[in-house]
Amino acid sequence: MKAAFYKEKGKFELGEGKVVVPGPGEVRLDVAYCGVCGTDVHIFHGVMDKRVNPPQTIGHEASAVVAEVGEGVTNVKVGYKVAVRPLRFGEPHPFDKGHAHVGKNLKFIGIDSEGAFQNSWTVPAYTLHQLPDGLSLEHGAFIEPLAVACHDVKIGRVKSGENTLVIGGGPIGTLIAYVLKEKGANVIVSEVNEARLKMLSELGFQTINPLKENLVDRISELTEEKMIDCAFEVSGSAPGVKTMTEVVNVRGRIVMVAIHGGEPKPVDLFKFFWSEIELLGARLYEEDDYEEAIRIAASGNIPFSKLITSKNTLDNIQQIFEEIDQNPAGMKYLIDCQA
Amino acid sequence: MKAAFYKEKGKFELGEGKVVVPGPGEVRLDVAYCGVCGTDVHIFHGVMDKRVNPPQTIGHEASAVVAEVGEGVTNVKVGYKVAVRPLRFGEPHPFDKGHAHVGKNLKFIGIDSEGAFQNSWTVPAYTLHQLPDGLSLEHGAFIEPLAVACHDVKIGRVKSGENTLVIGGGPIGTLIAYVLKEKGANVIVSEVNEARLKMLSELGFQTINPLKENLVDRISELTEEKMIDCAFEVSGSAPGVKTMTEVVNVRGRIVMVAIHGGEPKPVDLFKFFWSEIELLGARLYEEDDYEEAIRIAASGNIPFSKLITSKNTLDNIQQIFEEIDQNPAGMKYLIDCQA
Repeated sequence: MKAAFYKEKGKFELGEGKVVVPGPGEVRLDVAYCGVCGTDVHIFHGVMDKRVNPPQTIGHEASAVVAEVGEGVTNVKVGYKVAVRPLRFGEPHPFDKGHAHVGKNLKFIGIDSEGAFQNSWTVPAYTLHQLPDGLSLEHGAFIEPLAVACHDVKIGRVKSGENTLVIGGGPIGTLIAYVLKEKGANVIVSEVNEARLKMLSELGFQTINPLKENLVDRISELTEEKMIDCAFEVSGSAPGVKTMTEVVNVRGRIVMVAIHGGEPKPVDLFKFFWSEIELLGARLYEEDDYEEAIRIAASGNIPFSKLITSKNTLDNIQQIFEEIDQNPAGMKYLIDCQA
Repeated sequence: MKAAFYKEKGKFELGEGKVVVPGPGEVRLDVAYCGVCGTDVHIFHGVMDKRVNPPQTIGHEASAVVAEVGEGVTNVKVGYKVAVRPLRFGEPHPFDKGHAHVGKNLKFIGIDSEGAFQNSWTVPAYTLHQLPDGLSLEHGAFIEPLAVACHDVKIGRVKSGENTLVIGGGPIGTLIAYVLKEKGANVIVSEVNEARLKMLSELGFQTINPLKENLVDRISELTEEKMIDCAFEVSGSAPGVKTMTEVVNVRGRIVMVAIHGGEPKPVDLFKFFWSEIELLGARLYEEDDYEEAIRIAASGNIPFSKLITSKNTLDNIQQIFEEIDQNPAGMKYLIDCQA
């Protein structure tokens, strides 16, 4: 069966994958669609070579159809359409306090082990969430990133009527904006890429380009001086970090979604004290985030087709990753893993 | 009547204060004791001259006896022993979301208007909390800083049995440690001053000097790898900011107590994402924090007398502030405002 392998920095290779017969508690899937995540792009850039084990199949934003179930599997049956929550839980550690999704011994399927850019993929049954009839497999590939967004909004404790700001309108930022809208919040998106701004605007979101106007003044105007109840830092940039503390009001929350690697960035800690604001880290998702993502996706309120930049096949995976590098305005690239 | 006036950087002057007849809703107090706060020391150093209006009487950690009540005052009577919550609430602003104690129009009595380093002091009646019979006026001067500590621990949502770390064992850090003990938490205090460490140790607290041992390793050992559920950054230092993210476990909370002025300090934002940790700003106190502080103080569980570095009179205020500058190990300096 066909599989794409990450070989080395900048290089994928198509090859013959190994069909893994599902063991007890495992399920073999026919992968339907798999989206390309920013993390996959990082892997392609060679910066995660210490964690992946080339040649390795990566990919984790997958929808699939159950092809074969192992012994003792009761939650899914052959033929079920599913989304995969790609977390393999390890031994609980006291440090984790029961939060297995960010636990010390968590392994991420598609990074720490084989992923979804292949025809056939074998995963633990507990990673699977059934997709309802009305939700297509194509849109099912959005469940993983949408669950990230649901988790972020949950951590932010956003309530109806609150003013929210998403700093960074890429794929995750846009999905956060949709989940916020679903919660009844007022949503503003800050983004610097003009093509993304145009798209967000066409999708109906209030946008600000902080390079073109004073973001704090504009938000003050839009919120009648109330400012932001919950901000989401999704940009991963130093200006984003500066902005996040400037915009929130008293007891305002900031959800840290972005992965700020490298040197620690300067943060205005005085503002934390002065207005009793909160910074809340958010990573991945829990079971209920998947359930909510599926519910929102099935509602039809998110026009996924508009978020798909391109759909392609495993054969073209090298070309797709090269194209992503050339297109900072791109949103979601889907790979049809059966074509 | 006798009053101490802050005149200019480094200078207090004793003089004749004006007895203010209490207007409607106001109360005139005979000030009993007033503690010296770090903020008073900042004022003495001239760094808050934009906010104070010299010559001005400062001081806000006061106990007092009600001397005269204005029209309409019902919450206290002449002769009541009280602690003062020195907050004058202004017009509510939408930005504040009802949190008047950190509101845009809050004025702090003793900084933005006349304080307690005088015989007689007139304040709004709503600032007063009655002290129970068993609590001395001397110990009543601890209610203000103890309410800060109660507020910090409340914001940190600390539960019995949790592992907590106080970074910085000065007066506020020590009171936080006592409130944590009261909550049933396991308390560790990190401090670099040897005299303070000795004192904290004699008070029964587990201490670490991070200049002498590896703090993270030591905490791992003391907590059997569980690490810290809630850390309090009270040091105001860059090493304290580095430490706070290193010690907390998954979903661990960090309460930002210190006033980090000046240039924003580098913060490890990756850790926020990775372990879903929280940074929670805490400032001043609310009504219930005063009630809790009074309850804890009245319980007799805090040996206040051991925390008093010196007791002195208004006549010696200049000398006291000069002494504080020479004594980094000092804890609480009390001024007897009637002597």
